[in-house]
Amino acid sequence: MNDTSNLSYPGSRRIYVPGRLYPDVRVPMREIILGDTLLPDGTAHPNDPVRVYDCSGPWGDAAYEGTAEEGLPSLRAAWIRARGDVKEDVGHERTLRAAGKTPVTQRYYAQQGVITPEMEFVAIRENLGREQAFKAIYDRYPNAKSRPDEAAEALETLTMMPRPSELEAQEGFGPSSMVARDRLDHQHAPERRNGCRMPAYFTPEFVRDEIASGRALIPANINHPECEPMAIGRNFLVKINANIGNSALGSSIEEEVEKLRWAIHWGADTVMDLSTGKNIHATREWILRNSPVPIGTVPIYQALEKVGGKVADLSWEVFRDTLLEQARQGVDYVTVHAALLLRFVNHTARRMTGIVSRGGSIMAQWSMIHEQENFLYSHWDEICSILAAYDIAVSIGDGLRPGSVADANDFAQLAELEVQGDLTMRAWKAGVQVMNEGPGHVPMHLIRENMSKQLEWCMEAPFYTLGPLVTDIAPGYDHITGAIGGAIIGQLGCAMLCYVTRKEHLGLPDREDVREGVVAYKLAAHAADLAKGHPSAQWRDNALAQARFEFRWEDQFNLSLDPQKARSFHDLTLPHANAKKAHFCSMCGPDFCAMRLSQDIRRRSQQ
Amino acid sequence: MNDTSNLSYPGSRRIYVPGRLYPDVRVPMREIILGDTLLPDGTAHPNDPVRVYDCSGPWGDAAYEGTAEEGLPSLRAAWIRARGDVKEDVGHERTLRAAGKTPVTQRYYAQQGVITPEMEFVAIRENLGREQAFKAIYDRYPNAKSRPDEAAEALETLTMMPRPSELEAQEGFGPSSMVARDRLDHQHAPERRNGCRMPAYFTPEFVRDEIASGRALIPANINHPECEPMAIGRNFLVKINANIGNSALGSSIEEEVEKLRWAIHWGADTVMDLSTGKNIHATREWILRNSPVPIGTVPIYQALEKVGGKVADLSWEVFRDTLLEQARQGVDYVTVHAALLLRFVNHTARRMTGIVSRGGSIMAQWSMIHEQENFLYSHWDEICSILAAYDIAVSIGDGLRPGSVADANDFAQLAELEVQGDLTMRAWKAGVQVMNEGPGHVPMHLIRENMSKQLEWCMEAPFYTLGPLVTDIAPGYDHITGAIGGAIIGQLGCAMLCYVTRKEHLGLPDREDVREGVVAYKLAAHAADLAKGHPSAQWRDNALAQARFEFRWEDQFNLSLDPQKARSFHDLTLPHANAKKAHFCSMCGPDFCAMRLSQDIRRRSQQ
Repeated sequence: MNDTSNLSYPGSRRIYVPGRLYPDVRVPMREIILGDTLLPDGTAHPNDPVRVYDCSGPWGDAAYEGTAEEGLPSLRAAWIRARGDVKEDVGHERTLRAAGKTPVTQRYYAQQGVITPEMEFVAIRENLGREQAFKAIYDRYPNAKSRPDEAAEALETLTMMPRPSELEAQEGFGPSSMVARDRLDHQHAPERRNGCRMPAYFTPEFVRDEIASGRALIPANINHPECEPMAIGRNFLVKINANIGNSALGSSIEEEVEKLRWAIHWGADTVMDLSTGKNIHATREWILRNSPVPIGTVPIYQALEKVGGKVADLSWEVFRDTLLEQARQGVDYVTVHAALLLRFVNHTARRMTGIVSRGGSIMAQWSMIHEQENFLYSHWDEICSILAAYDIAVSIGDGLRPGSVADANDFAQLAELEVQGDLTMRAWKAGVQVMNEGPGHVPMHLIRENMSKQLEWCMEAPFYTLGPLVTDIAPGYDHITGAIGGAIIGQLGCAMLCYVTRKEHLGLPDREDVREGVVAYKLAAHAADLAKGHPSAQWRDNALAQARFEFRWEDQFNLSLDPQKARSFHDLTLPHANAKKAHFCSMCGPDFCAMRLSQDIRRRSQQ
Repeated sequence: MNDTSNLSYPGSRRIYVPGRLYPDVRVPMREIILGDTLLPDGTAHPNDPVRVYDCSGPWGDAAYEGTAEEGLPSLRAAWIRARGDVKEDVGHERTLRAAGKTPVTQRYYAQQGVITPEMEFVAIRENLGREQAFKAIYDRYPNAKSRPDEAAEALETLTMMPRPSELEAQEGFGPSSMVARDRLDHQHAPERRNGCRMPAYFTPEFVRDEIASGRALIPANINHPECEPMAIGRNFLVKINANIGNSALGSSIEEEVEKLRWAIHWGADTVMDLSTGKNIHATREWILRNSPVPIGTVPIYQALEKVGGKVADLSWEVFRDTLLEQARQGVDYVTVHAALLLRFVNHTARRMTGIVSRGGSIMAQWSMIHEQENFLYSHWDEICSILAAYDIAVSIGDGLRPGSVADANDFAQLAELEVQGDLTMRAWKAGVQVMNEGPGHVPMHLIRENMSKQLEWCMEAPFYTLGPLVTDIAPGYDHITGAIGGAIIGQLGCAMLCYVTRKEHLGLPDREDVREGVVAYKLAAHAADLAKGHPSAQWRDNALAQARFEFRWEDQFNLSLDPQKARSFHDLTLPHANAKKAHFCSMCGPDFCAMRLSQDIRRRSQQ
């Protein structure tokens, strides 16, 4: 496995956007630097850089010199201490917990009306280059004087709708692509947004309100101060999760940290550590200390290890101790399969593929062996009080998710979803941040039902789905079957997509599988953002399309999700450096280029 | 480039299903042979083989010994001659044309009430293993006596809806997966099918009616007797097209024939030869004589070659002669950019990416240079009379399709679509089979508008889209951005998807790119078939899911779209042969398998 310490994107630089409420908030973004547009008269018109979301944390900053052994800087330590509601955990040096009985969660603060540094961080992060873009518009149109955060309506007019003709008249008729980039065009009529309510501009107050309502969460354990705040909710950018973790059959600790850095380089917004083999604790420690993204786990896996893999020997006490252990380490969110009730299990017996969730099958088996209700359900309130004391978010598992399209949306699945809703309400009352896990294998025509029932039954708590895979017949290509379902459910309001690699159902993913999987899901999430009319989504598409139209090859590569791959594919047919400046591509060849013909048409029409 | 002559699928055999109306109709299918299910009592229960659609023609028959030099057998020659309406083309030995003024098209025959051998071929082909599956059901439930082709309603009850409880009672409570496979289950309520009207069983008469109405076509030039009939229409399986063709920058004739065989091996339903370099005629001849699938072209490309690449020198006469040349060779469908009118061109000048269709930009430029209407539009009736005399289907091009998501559904695109509708009606009146080409680059929320306007304005003529690509930011992964859009528009009623490879926008696809592209689109089309409730779609998913649940690894590989890849991925983690019989996979390892735990639950619940 190669070293990833020198991972970087070509033509990009790391920038930090400062907070206003909290001056020590510095939000990292990647800025892609673009070449000039050559105007028909031979002059060069500079193009603004494009700011993109950056999950890579300090690892993505060329100036950062830390090592994995040292761990990342404690970005949030001062913010956490400043709230004055935490203390050292008794008997566990250097770990924190709530000092009293009130939750130390972002949900609790939001409900108290407090805007935390984490919330301002998220607001800036979600806007991406939007403020900068507005500034460019205001510079050009001095009569549009209102400030971004004070005049959402004016911004809406300027950027989401066709540009008012008076503004067009001011500028005259320039290269259309430059004009087109300033409008985010006619496509984003609000009624197309499937119930998402995104503002033209994200303010810290908007973030606070979303967190308070439960429509979004910021997974941020007080013992994971290295974590850069991010939001999961349907009124924000769609997020993706990548799984890592050594199974019994392979991989070492160093490999897992490398996988983490590799996954976040390509754009994983959160990472789940699903280790099941030896050294679970140590592996997780390495991952947490080196992760700028929230880390999720499934604690029942480690609990099962502790009882030697014997499901019958699991107990509430073993689980509780495991949860506390992970809480103190800094796990940001945990999957808990508490909604799988004993009475649902028999409804899976006639399924095509039974129970396919690991956690779900463990709890089902435990319940049947002991003829008792799932102890995660019966101890839900105790679980919530632990979570609230560390600000661990809970991801309520879907242990009965379908494992084949034939089993999608059946009684067992939907019965569990209803219980997920009940547990959501109880967790919220305890101050805990919540999301709900969803399927799985679902044919396209049944995806909407999943999303709408989840929104209704779980009161708009964020939905977090695995896939969904829209067919079973493509092992080896399940990153694609999953990206199809993911894009669709993302458009409908799913907040986070758990990636699936092409090795799904077949084997353990290697580096290339992780890269392909993350990028496939990143593009699916982005397609959903476009379709939801997320205010920042279309800038990058437009910049890339403009670069393509103008044969700015380097910009095309650099603006893409995977510049290395785009460039290497181009090199295969046209390897010479000057082909990167050619006004044609290998698809048609030099004599026959639609793009160039079309540019000729534009020149003619302007004569 | 490797030889493809020994391409075959493991665990499969070629079968032929005979016609009833026409005994010499023999429809090729691939039958995947499955291992036994081991029942809890230790006995083995045999599983029926699964029949899948097979595009590979004689090349996919292990018994076939022909070579590329010889060309394929003339499957349809006798059927064409038997209709008594063709003669040798004057001055063109061994090529046929209509003997009189009546069309020799499948549309014309259908409208006369004639069921051709081609139509029966299609009906059998679209049913796949359905008849065989019904037979198995009838054998098991003797009280369901009606015959498949005579009792669609009974079949609907048996296969699309939950199984009647009296039938369940007859059999007792066996392994649920076997039961589940017999129903196609609760998911396929008719209201979910987006206006598609598919019967439970495809009869030749149903095919005839679809062709007569224009809702479907069977591209089948009378000079391409090697072609195996297939239907394109939204009430049939969603089809995919793969493009091949030497551009000015590479590839030889032999390579193009190899690409054809490679593409159809993986499942391309039609192939477009988009050659633009030298030897266009000879390349096409080799492809046609060796192709069991319909071949499409864009004749304006060759016409442009004939005038030395000078758009200004194009003329109706050059185009007409080119069209006739291709008609005599046997091209099955042609893209004609006749709907791009002069007055639309200026509406592209302010686009982000102007005109990106090669044919579209050629015609736009010609119109502007000469200040005349597009000659393909002004000579439409003459074009149609040529097409009708050879049964070439027309694919009315969308020369103004958007080249970026920013340009989707704009005035220019929709204006051209309206004209496509007018031209459709005129072509139908001339007896010509028609489909309409569509975009391109379209964000997800605008896909439905494309499909519904096309259905309305083009009177349900089949839609044939490129992609659509749902974002512009993923060069190197555009087979995925396109598969997402393709699955969505397929579900909504798009009849055929033109594939996009991961090299799109970057370079020429190689073998691996073609394979990945075809499989990505095949799975997208299949996902759409599932969502439309196509009667044959779910059998294969269910068989694969059952094999997965029962750890029949070989069957899992063999039932997948790409068995080689599925197997090779499994081998990477668990290379030993006995791992193919293991009751676990590398995802969880031997101690921790959700599938196995779930099987335990099933056994317990049955005790």
